[in-house]
Amino acid sequence: MPRISKRGTLMPNSPIRKLVPLAEEAIKQGKNVIRLNIGQPDIPTSDKALAAIKNLDAKVLGYSHSAGMESLRRKLVEYYKRHSIEVNYEDILITTGGSEAITITLLTCLNANDEILVPEPFYANYYSFATSTDVNVVAISSHIEDGFILPPISDFEKKITDRTKGIIICNPNNPTGHVYSRQELEQIRELVLKYDLYLLSDEVYREFVYDGEEFISIMQLEGLEQHAILIDSLSKRYSATGLRTGALITKNQHLRDTALKFCQARLSPPYVGQIAGEAAIDSSKEYMNGAYNEYLSRRNYLIEVLNNIPGVFCTKPKGAFYVMAKLPVDDAEKFAMWLLSDFEYEGNTVMFAPGAGFYTEGGLGKQEIRIAYVINQNQLKIAMKCLEEGLKQYPGKLAEEKSVIDYSTAK
Amino acid sequence: MPRISKRGTLMPNSPIRKLVPLAEEAIKQGKNVIRLNIGQPDIPTSDKALAAIKNLDAKVLGYSHSAGMESLRRKLVEYYKRHSIEVNYEDILITTGGSEAITITLLTCLNANDEILVPEPFYANYYSFATSTDVNVVAISSHIEDGFILPPISDFEKKITDRTKGIIICNPNNPTGHVYSRQELEQIRELVLKYDLYLLSDEVYREFVYDGEEFISIMQLEGLEQHAILIDSLSKRYSATGLRTGALITKNQHLRDTALKFCQARLSPPYVGQIAGEAAIDSSKEYMNGAYNEYLSRRNYLIEVLNNIPGVFCTKPKGAFYVMAKLPVDDAEKFAMWLLSDFEYEGNTVMFAPGAGFYTEGGLGKQEIRIAYVINQNQLKIAMKCLEEGLKQYPGKLAEEKSVIDYSTAK
Repeated sequence: MPRISKRGTLMPNSPIRKLVPLAEEAIKQGKNVIRLNIGQPDIPTSDKALAAIKNLDAKVLGYSHSAGMESLRRKLVEYYKRHSIEVNYEDILITTGGSEAITITLLTCLNANDEILVPEPFYANYYSFATSTDVNVVAISSHIEDGFILPPISDFEKKITDRTKGIIICNPNNPTGHVYSRQELEQIRELVLKYDLYLLSDEVYREFVYDGEEFISIMQLEGLEQHAILIDSLSKRYSATGLRTGALITKNQHLRDTALKFCQARLSPPYVGQIAGEAAIDSSKEYMNGAYNEYLSRRNYLIEVLNNIPGVFCTKPKGAFYVMAKLPVDDAEKFAMWLLSDFEYEGNTVMFAPGAGFYTEGGLGKQEIRIAYVINQNQLKIAMKCLEEGLKQYPGKLAEEKSVIDYSTAK
Repeated sequence: MPRISKRGTLMPNSPIRKLVPLAEEAIKQGKNVIRLNIGQPDIPTSDKALAAIKNLDAKVLGYSHSAGMESLRRKLVEYYKRHSIEVNYEDILITTGGSEAITITLLTCLNANDEILVPEPFYANYYSFATSTDVNVVAISSHIEDGFILPPISDFEKKITDRTKGIIICNPNNPTGHVYSRQELEQIRELVLKYDLYLLSDEVYREFVYDGEEFISIMQLEGLEQHAILIDSLSKRYSATGLRTGALITKNQHLRDTALKFCQARLSPPYVGQIAGEAAIDSSKEYMNGAYNEYLSRRNYLIEVLNNIPGVFCTKPKGAFYVMAKLPVDDAEKFAMWLLSDFEYEGNTVMFAPGAGFYTEGGLGKQEIRIAYVINQNQLKIAMKCLEEGLKQYPGKLAEEKSVIDYSTAK
């Protein structure tokens, strides 16, 4: 029997691997399992996208251009212009979701065994994309206590080697909800120029920035034309993750020409996803505001409730639709498993993503969970009740004093 | 300015790279450029697929399971059963086109710098998938003179090293149209078992096998449960290349579990492509027969016309919708360029894929072209007239005696 590859063995399992069978078992037992562990929005898909699909009049669903349909690329230029991001359609390669945009960027920019810096906690699949392209992730830790602001630049510099080729940021951040300030982005910009690094910025949550916080794209930073790669996706902003329509955007023509060769190998992105994506860009203000306000009120509700549960702590995330919360437990993964297997509250229980799955450094995030607020507020209320009651009953709960956080450093 | 990666530099350009600007220029000049260079069928997409898209009633186009929708996987089991291929739905991972199925298989089965054997000429993107996964392609040459039958097994054995981990075949073959016989497949089977190799078989043209030839899947070969990986796609058989719905199928559970980790990283295949693909499996006999008969009569027409043009040679391909033809020219790529830039026949010209792009060994295929018969017979007739007239006028034409082939060895 032939062997599996090393990279196949190294590929990480899903952070909720241990939870899935327990959730399935809980459902079998008749429990209502409220899933706060995934980034799949419950908001209806943009009606413009759905209408475009229903009205599809093509007779042959063929390959599109490997770089994506020109009409979609041109439409995106208008979209970005509205967000004060100036790009040409030639700067845009349409990809099969943001996932493919990241993979192709890593293949294009980094050699095998090169290193990429990523502030942690980070979206767990970055690690998978790096593993599948033989790239090493070097994490720089940020912390829940200060709302996951950018770690000191000296922390990045300490980890730079001659194999360091780039940095990935996610802005607004999944899983932390942090929105990078102008000052933070300027610091990153200087670092990138000083060490001649690529800067990948995953900005798929751009539409979801709260409290009047300013969203700044890396495409708005000066002097990064050869360094900046914007990773985007229509998935989150139009609630259409199944379209698999993303984009790799850069002013660096050599990078683009090279990335296009990877695009050509897989022929084209999905046809219907592009048609629907193009239509979605015309989604009404009512639709966009509706989604925004829904996420905002869920966030406000969640933050208040979470911080009122004894021993639980979180800061107020300024963007995306996630919150990381610290719990007074020995191990948040064990707690999440226990909630599914040993607990119920009036027939309900809840499923969280354990925080440790978003960190690489051993031990970090062990008391943290990520909550995706992608369910309606009725269910969210029940979920929070489950969390509160669960913490009362969980055998691995820490005594209050052990879980105390120095709030004076918190944002 | 940071550097592009080595693999980015190594990624091959499209085999028609030099032709594209010439074709664009020819169109600008008002010429009708008949494109026989691409595998994009002109046959209408299955009406079942189109209807499923129009009737889509989902409110949220979300992620599906990373392995693909269970209903599609179960439907595929029925489809394969009709083709005497016995698989369970758990054996099937849905991928974003056959392209992704190959890439994930290479990542799962081969380490960086491992080698994979491929009979050449082969689908040029295999080389790209290998380059993007740091795998080395080792080609074993087959020949137009004998209709591209399987090269002697001793040719494979000569190239096996301790880094050889697998073999890719394409059956029916793109670009040759060859359909592997039972005897050939048994030889491959023995080789695979003798050296404990993976066997990838790209069977996306399964539906298009002519002249009563028997199609045999590697899934029907005995004792290959741990070695065989079937690569499939709905693109060609339902004329829906834009759906990007493919499959990676294997009985090897460890391989599947590992491949699933790569699937999880990119979350899910396209939603609409799966819905439409599932519906397409119920395409009517009339639809399937209509496409089949159209390709068959195009092939019959082409083969006859080609072999009647002085100095042109091709054998009769038994499957797919391609034919490789040998031309009496110094260099088929130069000829293809000349046809676009310096030739027209009553306002028309034709675009072929130069044969050398399907070989890795220098010089092989230099006089060959690949014709994809994916246009209607009226256009095909004009295209053949262009070829005939073009050969009369082309300055690099070889004298008859230089291009003579020993037909006695031809099939």
